[in-house]
Amino acid sequence: MTGAMFERVGIAGLGLIGTSFGLALRARGLAGRVIGVDRDAAAITVARGRGAVDEGAADYAVLEGADLVIVAVPPQAVVDAALRAAGPARRGAVLFDVASVKAPIVRALEAALPEGVRFVGGHPMAGTERQGAAAADAALLTGRPFLITPTARSDADAVDVVWNLARGLGMRPLLLDPDVHDAIVAQVSHVPYLLAAAAVNAADDVALGLGGPAFESLRRMAGSPVELWVEICSQNRSAILRSLGWVRDELDRLEAALNEDALGGLLAAARRRAGGGG
Amino acid sequence: MTGAMFERVGIAGLGLIGTSFGLALRARGLAGRVIGVDRDAAAITVARGRGAVDEGAADYAVLEGADLVIVAVPPQAVVDAALRAAGPARRGAVLFDVASVKAPIVRALEAALPEGVRFVGGHPMAGTERQGAAAADAALLTGRPFLITPTARSDADAVDVVWNLARGLGMRPLLLDPDVHDAIVAQVSHVPYLLAAAAVNAADDVALGLGGPAFESLRRMAGSPVELWVEICSQNRSAILRSLGWVRDELDRLEAALNEDALGGLLAAARRRAGGGG
Repeated sequence: MTGAMFERVGIAGLGLIGTSFGLALRARGLAGRVIGVDRDAAAITVARGRGAVDEGAADYAVLEGADLVIVAVPPQAVVDAALRAAGPARRGAVLFDVASVKAPIVRALEAALPEGVRFVGGHPMAGTERQGAAAADAALLTGRPFLITPTARSDADAVDVVWNLARGLGMRPLLLDPDVHDAIVAQVSHVPYLLAAAAVNAADDVALGLGGPAFESLRRMAGSPVELWVEICSQNRSAILRSLGWVRDELDRLEAALNEDALGGLLAAARRRAGGGG
Repeated sequence: MTGAMFERVGIAGLGLIGTSFGLALRARGLAGRVIGVDRDAAAITVARGRGAVDEGAADYAVLEGADLVIVAVPPQAVVDAALRAAGPARRGAVLFDVASVKAPIVRALEAALPEGVRFVGGHPMAGTERQGAAAADAALLTGRPFLITPTARSDADAVDVVWNLARGLGMRPLLLDPDVHDAIVAQVSHVPYLLAAAAVNAADDVALGLGGPAFESLRRMAGSPVELWVEICSQNRSAILRSLGWVRDELDRLEAALNEDALGGLLAAARRRAGGGG
């Protein structure tokens, strides 16, 4: 497969993100062959039908000889899936996951993965409130940040491989320490989701029926798959609690300022930080 | 002007919303003539150049003979602008405002407006983080809720006129008591804005630089014009404080559930309420 960045790419987990990677790799001609693994035969059928994978199976043995493995299963299943994929993969294969919590996964895999598979933590910041192979879309990845979380134990060439893949897919790679990653993602993703869930749970039925542009954004966030968020929140609990505490401190300040009719300064600061101008 | 719903429409305040109404009225052929009032000559020039108004002036006398007046100035200037517009308008003219807080404005105008002008409180739920005549867009209104807040003192025919205008503009009219309106809008608009401001103010610089889809929604909200929000929050303070309290109670529940690894129920409720499926 001359010209392709990878000869044989394995994707473990043909959900929204895994299948989107398959579509994007194929659309950009970066993979000679793409092989999917999923215990759900229907997901494989959809992913094949959409051209995201050439073949797929429930058994990890199908990843035999893969030079790149993308582990795109739910966060709490990542470690197990990575260990299963490591066996059949080619010696020296690069393996990355896509979970939005990194430190616990990176720590577990660096301790457990066999030599010969070069693991790098990854987190493509993409998604929608929909899920599954049918909702996958190569465009979901385009222009998005691809956070890569190497450690002192990571293979530098493998980090380069993931970086170049991100670039090749039109994403914006960024290197972050795993713990820093988890703290930041708590702020920009996990806590915003919890704020949205709180706003939706607090809204009465008339408000829910009405909507409006601001509320629709929150509603979209709160409409995301629950199982995934339960796992994310469990894995990143301490960073989320810390970040939620900061937001609550800010809410205290806003509430006090509201009572004193002195909101201007705090709102102007938010607007400046948001890049919305003076 | 046969066929037009109104012969002569006055728009006081050629900002984002006022100018968007002018564009929409013209695009749909609902007004024979559209007259703008703004103390800012540049806004008039832009609105005329874009075809939102036929003519404009700083002096309310230009509204002579208007059969419909749209008061689209900032919330705290609505009462004064409505009183100024009432003089030159035709006897029996319908006048509505577009502020997102209704009870204080409705109460003040029902007490102060001269007979012969039929006032109805209005709130088209449309907007962007941009502002001014240059950012106006007829499409901003299409499909949006148009909340109308009549009271026992409102003229029923005037309410019909505003309802039919909303329909004619492709909006979704809904009648609400002014106090109910303010309570609901606190939930779906004002408190979401404050949550966004809190999240942005709590975020560190790396998080701000990173973004991601959830955070970008909050950032857009927090980037809205501050002056407008200061007025809105001041006018709707008690409803906002109440609604913010409910959201904080929900955050307490989420935090407790996070600590106990028992988030599933609360998140599933939010997803159901958000219409996001099981």
